[in-house]
Amino acid sequence: MLAKAEDFFFSVKNPGNTNNPVGSNVTSVNVEQIPGLNTLGMSAVRIDYAPYGQNAPHTHPRATEILVVLEGTLLVGFVTSNPNNTLISKFLNKGDVFVFPIGLIHFQFNVGKTNAVAMAGLSSQNPGVITIADAVFGSKPAINPDFLAKAFQLDVKVVKDLQAKF
Amino acid sequence: MLAKAEDFFFSVKNPGNTNNPVGSNVTSVNVEQIPGLNTLGMSAVRIDYAPYGQNAPHTHPRATEILVVLEGTLLVGFVTSNPNNTLISKFLNKGDVFVFPIGLIHFQFNVGKTNAVAMAGLSSQNPGVITIADAVFGSKPAINPDFLAKAFQLDVKVVKDLQAKF
Amino acid sequence: MLAKAEDFFFSVKNPGNTNNPVGSNVTSVNVEQIPGLNTLGMSAVRIDYAPYGQNAPHTHPRATEILVVLEGTLLVGFVTSNPNNTLISKFLNKGDVFVFPIGLIHFQFNVGKTNAVAMAGLSSQNPGVITIADAVFGSKPAINPDFLAKAFQLDVKVVKDLQAKF
Amino acid sequence: MLAKAEDFFFSVKNPGNTNNPVGSNVTSVNVEQIPGLNTLGMSAVRIDYAPYGQNAPHTHPRATEILVVLEGTLLVGFVTSNPNNTLISKFLNKGDVFVFPIGLIHFQFNVGKTNAVAMAGLSSQNPGVITIADAVFGSKPAINPDFLAKAFQLDVKVVKDLQAKF
Amino acid sequence: MLAKAEDFFFSVKNPGNTNNPVGSNVTSVNVEQIPGLNTLGMSAVRIDYAPYGQNAPHTHPRATEILVVLEGTLLVGFVTSNPNNTLISKFLNKGDVFVFPIGLIHFQFNVGKTNAVAMAGLSSQNPGVITIADAVFGSKPAINPDFLAKAFQLDVKVVKDLQAKF
Amino acid sequence: MLAKAEDFFFSVKNPGNTNNPVGSNVTSVNVEQIPGLNTLGMSAVRIDYAPYGQNAPHTHPRATEILVVLEGTLLVGFVTSNPNNTLISKFLNKGDVFVFPIGLIHFQFNVGKTNAVAMAGLSSQNPGVITIADAVFGSKPAINPDFLAKAFQLDVKVVKDLQAKF
Repeated sequence: MLAKAEDFFFSVKNPGNTNNPVGSNVTSVNVEQIPGLNTLGMSAVRIDYAPYGQNAPHTHPRATEILVVLEGTLLVGFVTSNPNNTLISKFLNKGDVFVFPIGLIHFQFNVGKTNAVAMAGLSSQNPGVITIADAVFGSKPAINPDFLAKAFQLDVKVVKDLQAKF
Repeated sequence: MLAKAEDFFFSVKNPGNTNNPVGSNVTSVNVEQIPGLNTLGMSAVRIDYAPYGQNAPHTHPRATEILVVLEGTLLVGFVTSNPNNTLISKFLNKGDVFVFPIGLIHFQFNVGKTNAVAMAGLSSQNPGVITIADAVFGSKPAINPDFLAKAFQLDVKVVKDLQAKF
Repeated sequence: MLAKAEDFFFSVKNPGNTNNPVGSNVTSVNVEQIPGLNTLGMSAVRIDYAPYGQNAPHTHPRATEILVVLEGTLLVGFVTSNPNNTLISKFLNKGDVFVFPIGLIHFQFNVGKTNAVAMAGLSSQNPGVITIADAVFGSKPAINPDFLAKAFQLDVKVVKDLQAKF
Repeated sequence: MLAKAEDFFFSVKNPGNTNNPVGSNVTSVNVEQIPGLNTLGMSAVRIDYAPYGQNAPHTHPRATEILVVLEGTLLVGFVTSNPNNTLISKFLNKGDVFVFPIGLIHFQFNVGKTNAVAMAGLSSQNPGVITIADAVFGSKPAINPDFLAKAFQLDVKVVKDLQAKF
Repeated sequence: MLAKAEDFFFSVKNPGNTNNPVGSNVTSVNVEQIPGLNTLGMSAVRIDYAPYGQNAPHTHPRATEILVVLEGTLLVGFVTSNPNNTLISKFLNKGDVFVFPIGLIHFQFNVGKTNAVAMAGLSSQNPGVITIADAVFGSKPAINPDFLAKAFQLDVKVVKDLQAKF
Repeated sequence: MLAKAEDFFFSVKNPGNTNNPVGSNVTSVNVEQIPGLNTLGMSAVRIDYAPYGQNAPHTHPRATEILVVLEGTLLVGFVTSNPNNTLISKFLNKGDVFVFPIGLIHFQFNVGKTNAVAMAGLSSQNPGVITIADAVFGSKPAINPDFLAKAFQLDVKVVKDLQAKF
């Protein structure tokens, strides 16, 4: 069925636009971009970071990620599950590789004054992304603010402000 | 190897202690409690809720969950992944069943004046639990507060207060 | 695609009708009842038992089962595979949990004078059920009675009687 | 670790001894006989049948089976799961291939006056075998005979006789 | 859906035609021949060998293979992956069984003066076959001959001759 | 168990040494280098290419590969399985991504006058590598040269020369 090179190809040669509140951009390379990935259990992403930009805390519900830094210096980390919630983090430079196990909350932070770039492989043709702040405070419709205030030990007014922002 | 009924048995007859800030308690029944679950890809939990208690927003990195309400009335929900972040929620009464797909952020909230109880099956012998607030604001060591302030669009002072609480 | 709470919901609040020869009833909650279970590898059942009712010996060809007793007292068990054929069984009361590993013959028996109820999770969106007596003696068309007589060391007349009943 | 040809080899050149009540014999070739099968998800069996011998109704809890007849004529079949319990059966001669899907009750019956031989592949390194009659009526300890009498609609005396035989 | 015996049946009673350069023939029994194999993770093949015929070095990209010799004497083998490239080989006679692990290059060679026959089970409904010589020297379009000359340390003229033959 | 950042980290910042006959070098980042990859189904590699260097035709028996070019220009390709043996190939520049499906023979060729570098993700913690020329002509012990001569339609003398080289 799939017999053309284009079915197995995509280009991420162009930097993503990091002109946004968190200062980062993710370019996906999954089965939507490369139909030949169907049933193969893999995908990839290019991530661009402006100076001090961040790839905010998020999870992939269906994939482990292995990331390599191509440019710049990143502080990366993930938090282990209950009951320990241990933060496992490290500064990475060009050529350094780090693993984020499936489903765990993780992030990258460009700690340098210059742009940073990373590539990552993911163990699913459609890994999904859940940005924690967007899912918790920016869902449509909104989660009950009193409920969230209790869960996050925040004043309910602060929660409502957050929900207005996201 | 495993040839005794006790290897396939555990009891959750006793209610969990909900005398805590969120007013809920999860009793796990996974491979640590039932060694016979090894390699079988299943586990279970009992969840107790005080009046207005909540099972705060969390994910299971390695399992889908199917929950049935045994007592009381719960508001349950999950949020879909990017880019939609749609909140899928419903009020459940005794005998109602709801599914939380693998890796998605979900919660239950006891909206009644009486205790509530639920049982759930999970599709892993060791599903893991990530309570979002604990992982984000309560990790050990703490995630950089400036980084979190930006990710959650919170004042850095609020983040530091949260990190002190969790 | 699936964006409504109803796609992830089903209710088993009503007891099943146990007015049948074995005195039990299974209400399924699988991908046919909850389309949102598709690809998620999970399902559930509610089982009702009249006094002295039984969920007759059966297997699930594609799932392990984890059962919790909600009301009453059950004698449950499964038989290990060749060559041992060990019966692993136990009396369960409300709140007790028991595991039936994938593909093994198992059963539940309400040993009390009152109704019993159980819920169970299963590790497949479509676990299947093979009731041994129905499959062996009630297949359509019937299995050769001489063949079955030899397999079960029964008189061929007894086999034919059984085939007439099932 | 495994670097010798013997780790990937076993011989089933010798016929199994069919001098037993059912007139058949299964020679297993799984991970116990061939350690190199570890993690590879495959195994095999040789089955010998005396004239009118049978491989009695059984299931493999963890494998699909694909069988080829090497000698003789077999009547083979399997029964689909609830609610249909359809018998799917066929006479097979030398060189004929038939599939028994995972977990379904199936059998082979040598309908000829001469010995028959078959080989089969199975989709697990350790597929397991549950001979229905042995598991139901020959478990150790025995299943409660009143319970079985109701499940199989047999007189309890017949059940006790069966349990004495198996 | 699939409710007829023919959906689970295929015959390989007829020998394959070995009148070809390598003197062997493979008759496939996969999901294309037996639709009932769909989702079941299994298939089979019959292999016929003329005297001194060979099943040339090949791999199955999606399956482990377990082979049994039905007639004749075969020299079989596989080569382990980098860095060892150990040849694991053995002479097999009628009734001998050998395993070829998933993805490894393997072969069979009829070392006798008479025809040989084998049956094999494979751990995929669609295992695929890559005959090394055909894929490397017979691809359409051809791989750059200078590139292949370097990879195989062959004179480029020899590579071009090979590409003309395959 | 694994609670240190070093368990999830490895660096490939240094170029591999391409001073060898094929002019390329693969630096592996699998579970041997990163113990935290255990059970996670992922790994990575860095590949360096001298001018006109090649990553010779090879397969990964247990993984699909997704490659991104970091420097230089590569001609990459894979050959589909029997019966088509279609060569799917493409020239790639910096930022281009290409997929090599599990088990298929594939290669990369630096067609430029400068060094080239690529990173790739693989869908196994231990994907394995089979370099075709090494496995076929360089196995220890050697495969029978008459057998290989027939398989590859080469003069037996050429095969023996090859076996001496590899």
